[in-house]
Amino acid sequence: MTAFISIAAFEAALADLRDSDPHAAADARVRQGALTKPAGSLGRLEELAVFFAGWQRRARPRIERARAAIFAGNHGVTVHGVSAFPASVTAQMVANFASGGAAINALAGAAGLELTVVALDLDRPTADFTVAAAMREDECLDALNQGAAVVEADLDLIVLGEMGIGNSTAAAALCARSFGGDAAAWVGPGTGVDGHGIARKADVVSRALAFHGEAPTSAFETLRCVGGREIAAIAGAVLRARQLGVPVLLDGFICGAALAPLAADNPAIAAHCIAGHCSAEPGHRHLLDMLGLDPLLRLDMRLGEGSGAAVAANIVRSALAAHDQMATFAEAQVSASL
Amino acid sequence: MTAFISIAAFEAALADLRDSDPHAAADARVRQGALTKPAGSLGRLEELAVFFAGWQRRARPRIERARAAIFAGNHGVTVHGVSAFPASVTAQMVANFASGGAAINALAGAAGLELTVVALDLDRPTADFTVAAAMREDECLDALNQGAAVVEADLDLIVLGEMGIGNSTAAAALCARSFGGDAAAWVGPGTGVDGHGIARKADVVSRALAFHGEAPTSAFETLRCVGGREIAAIAGAVLRARQLGVPVLLDGFICGAALAPLAADNPAIAAHCIAGHCSAEPGHRHLLDMLGLDPLLRLDMRLGEGSGAAVAANIVRSALAAHDQMATFAEAQVSASL
Repeated sequence: MTAFISIAAFEAALADLRDSDPHAAADARVRQGALTKPAGSLGRLEELAVFFAGWQRRARPRIERARAAIFAGNHGVTVHGVSAFPASVTAQMVANFASGGAAINALAGAAGLELTVVALDLDRPTADFTVAAAMREDECLDALNQGAAVVEADLDLIVLGEMGIGNSTAAAALCARSFGGDAAAWVGPGTGVDGHGIARKADVVSRALAFHGEAPTSAFETLRCVGGREIAAIAGAVLRARQLGVPVLLDGFICGAALAPLAADNPAIAAHCIAGHCSAEPGHRHLLDMLGLDPLLRLDMRLGEGSGAAVAANIVRSALAAHDQMATFAEAQVSASL
Repeated sequence: MTAFISIAAFEAALADLRDSDPHAAADARVRQGALTKPAGSLGRLEELAVFFAGWQRRARPRIERARAAIFAGNHGVTVHGVSAFPASVTAQMVANFASGGAAINALAGAAGLELTVVALDLDRPTADFTVAAAMREDECLDALNQGAAVVEADLDLIVLGEMGIGNSTAAAALCARSFGGDAAAWVGPGTGVDGHGIARKADVVSRALAFHGEAPTSAFETLRCVGGREIAAIAGAVLRARQLGVPVLLDGFICGAALAPLAADNPAIAAHCIAGHCSAEPGHRHLLDMLGLDPLLRLDMRLGEGSGAAVAANIVRSALAAHDQMATFAEAQVSASL
């Protein structure tokens, strides 16, 4: 099944976002108040339980089936020396995912997540977006749909991540074009370039912004002009998850940047999403502020691959376990506060 | 077996702390540099792997057997109205732990931790420490040994936590006596007292400091005079874990306060400990600074029971899974950086 049969269908879906269920959330909040603990003392874990209740539309949400979906793509912009690694590493890492040797394999396993890896036309990098649109319309729509296809209605949670040499430059361009600000405010070391590399990234982003300055800035056009296939796939997965009521756990800067053009069109897009962590990439904190997301973890991670979000999935599991399994004051015959 | 046969034996153990294994830590650091990811990109997860390698004295540390040990005690100081809950709740919550209905039951289960609950003479609260020493010498030594007894040499990790109505007041007194500072800087809402309650707590701590002002301030005497049984048990467990080379995951403010008197005698005491989280209790951040600990999580939790540390145990598991299971660049035939 194709989730978005046309650009217009994608834009219509983005314009008409469903809400969470306030009744299920309210019931979860009442339950939290009755559990054997001082009110509010589980902090963020209580908020997570209420959040999942609202989006799963049940007062006692659960994580039985959860999937980490990692999207990979290649980027024409790597010709400008924006990464510390050669572009061939994208395909090598996809092979590493397949053989189980990458961080996300270990971290998804530790968190009890199914792992789905989608490599998007790695032998056809996007165009160099300093001189052309990164993708044609059909290519961008296909990437959105490949992302949407991994979201199944019976998932209780989807964890999103990416791999793509050069994609932190695309992410910076997406943020700058969606939210404004100088290129320099959105670029960073990525996989580990030095100061010269960061300056090159800022220059590439500035030139891309100048080149595409007159083009339309709809979510679709921004993804198409300065995004990448794996980034568009994440955008498609986020929107499809919203349609199906599946909560989303976002990884780092590049994953979050996939939402930037969507948020510019509809600021409510991130409401069903949790930021798994705040990465060490400098632009991520600002991006999270723009998306209205407060990250669960701050562990100085900056790998991508969904790694930070996979670690955060354990926090979600803990939150829902406490919410579901704890006794109430009445059940346990514990005296409430004085 | 009694870990500390006398006060002198306890003090000798505290004076002679073993170190971690620098060779195992160095080997783990080399391994981290060879795994298929940009150097340093797993951030805090890499540091955890190296930390566990050093304390477990093997380059590929593991968590096969991990225990959460929760100690409960009652406090004479509750006569001053320092808690939002009646003192009877300590025993009620111990019953709740036994029947599986508390937060720590769910959170230990989610993190794969054995759960051991030790209730220390709940029918004999400590003395009101504004007018007497909280414990006799034999009582304090017994509590230290009850804590030490839960630490077995084959544990790969021990998670420590507490339950005791009134014990955030004892924790504040321990911090103030060990590290100095006004009582008001160390007291907070605890389970949820209001501003008047916090003022009462500050007054109680100030009076305790004045009453015990002339008494010796060794680790043992501080624990004995203004501590509590469950707090002394945590101190005993921490010291015993150091003797046995078992890494410790600490919970919140009260758990950390058990280390304050030990750190005043030997600042190296916290070297084998990780702060699981920074709680919402205002004194905790300052306490962690004094102990030289950087918390893994900041989730606004303030329950105690080992709850924050149990959630953090998932982060440790993720870190060690990545360290142990990932392929190296050579194994995966992935190109290293340019």
